[in-house]
Amino acid sequence: MRFAKGHGTENDFVILLDPDGRHELTAGLAARLCDRRAGIGADGVLRAVRAAAAGTAAVGTAAAWSVAGAGAGGGAGAPVGRAEAPEWFMDYRNADGSLAEMCGNGIRVFARYLAEHGLAGKPEFAVATRSGPRQVSLGDDGQVTVEMGTVTVLGPASAVVGGEAVEGLRVSVGNPHLACLVDRPLEDFDLAAPPALDPARFPGGANVELVRETGPAAVAMRVHERGSGETRSCGTGAVAAAMAAAWAHGQDGGTWRVAVPGGSLHVTLKDGGGWLTGPAVIVAEGDLDPAWLAASAAPGQG
Amino acid sequence: MRFAKGHGTENDFVILLDPDGRHELTAGLAARLCDRRAGIGADGVLRAVRAAAAGTAAVGTAAAWSVAGAGAGGGAGAPVGRAEAPEWFMDYRNADGSLAEMCGNGIRVFARYLAEHGLAGKPEFAVATRSGPRQVSLGDDGQVTVEMGTVTVLGPASAVVGGEAVEGLRVSVGNPHLACLVDRPLEDFDLAAPPALDPARFPGGANVELVRETGPAAVAMRVHERGSGETRSCGTGAVAAAMAAAWAHGQDGGTWRVAVPGGSLHVTLKDGGGWLTGPAVIVAEGDLDPAWLAASAAPGQG
Repeated sequence: MRFAKGHGTENDFVILLDPDGRHELTAGLAARLCDRRAGIGADGVLRAVRAAAAGTAAVGTAAAWSVAGAGAGGGAGAPVGRAEAPEWFMDYRNADGSLAEMCGNGIRVFARYLAEHGLAGKPEFAVATRSGPRQVSLGDDGQVTVEMGTVTVLGPASAVVGGEAVEGLRVSVGNPHLACLVDRPLEDFDLAAPPALDPARFPGGANVELVRETGPAAVAMRVHERGSGETRSCGTGAVAAAMAAAWAHGQDGGTWRVAVPGGSLHVTLKDGGGWLTGPAVIVAEGDLDPAWLAASAAPGQG
Repeated sequence: MRFAKGHGTENDFVILLDPDGRHELTAGLAARLCDRRAGIGADGVLRAVRAAAAGTAAVGTAAAWSVAGAGAGGGAGAPVGRAEAPEWFMDYRNADGSLAEMCGNGIRVFARYLAEHGLAGKPEFAVATRSGPRQVSLGDDGQVTVEMGTVTVLGPASAVVGGEAVEGLRVSVGNPHLACLVDRPLEDFDLAAPPALDPARFPGGANVELVRETGPAAVAMRVHERGSGETRSCGTGAVAAAMAAAWAHGQDGGTWRVAVPGGSLHVTLKDGGGWLTGPAVIVAEGDLDPAWLAASAAPGQG
């Protein structure tokens, strides 16, 4: 089976090309592929399947597509509106094998891979995900922009980070965030342990961002992702961080540069939606060893 | 450039095939390749170069080869003696880019890779390393045996592991070890921090093994490698652990099974030398992305 490895701001992925949906990306296979010593190693696996081959259960119904397609996108500053149904479905699993709906860093790498193989047709297209279709746009400068969906501010809350109370803004980017503006160097904070959150406000936990303004329309961010610990980058977290910074200025729009440990992202907030722009790098491509694959796909391997 | 990724008991490597020595494995390129998020990810890089193309500076002189070849190997239970000079040189760098002399887990993966590509000629052959030539032997069962060189017992010493004093045996396997037989479950020990060693006895530090007998000629081991922390496996550490276990029985020979976190190894001690047997797995092969490689090889990248 063909594979590639790539990353977006050091959030890294194994990409599997399976246009006809002949292979099942099981939890066990995903975990084996993401094993950083016994496999390829990555934060997640992106399987590229033609939407027609993936089935409506995976891609969502045509009705869901129409509703989502009518409600977002378009307008100056945002990527193009949607003209057609997605050709490709991004089947995504996390490194622990669990299913994931969407990943703002992953879908950029996914789009770059399709484009480099002439599988996308044009530089702006839609990708089907478990969160619905998402518009992507490849720039001439190597940057990829992806539609991140609705961004909703839910109000203030606080967390305890390394024994220290910090105030933040609850933001939903499909998943829950607490984005905390701070005025001290980010390296002063201890994110080794999960921040303590009020379980009444965050029944399912949340990603916690520490955000510091570094200039006009520019912030730096560190992020603790629930279930993963501190990471090098988080696409939805960057969107939440930009919203918290805008909010502090009495705004809910604009374009912000968000520096993360793994690189630099740009977030555009407009009309209640978010768009994430950043690099997408393919590191290598090749074939999985058949013997390794057979052993990894065997029953009992996960 | 072609690459493969493989592992031996979860000590993992990027292999580069460069038969004619046309590419330089710089410290920066090795570090970029081993970067687990922005590169392929590995503990080290093994570049396969024909010895004739690698030059005497890398491979060692013909005189060194003759002396080493005359002094070791042969006899029942050990791999075959040497009949000819090595065809391949293993150019090895650690994940931080530093040069390394030899690696008992890496050379098994290296040998497996050569054999799978028809580059070894036969199942028993010698590989040139910066520690001199090493004999390898591929079994029909997927196991690979490698000559580990001279094993020398230097006497007792102690370490402080997680605040607790433990007694051990100083063993040289080319590099320094303190192998500590313990009679409690290995998971009881805290190897998060480097064990404290007497600097007078270990001026350059040492790898520290915690070793527990689990049956006849069988031990389990955890290892803290100097500079790397606790690892899933260590080839020279397994040899040192086997020697410490044999020594406790008043022996300096025999074959021991050594269970490590990343799998199972066998060590044969005989005539003052050590041989390591274990699995070697190729996970995937392919090509490095030219744009990624150009960026990684650019000046200022490491």
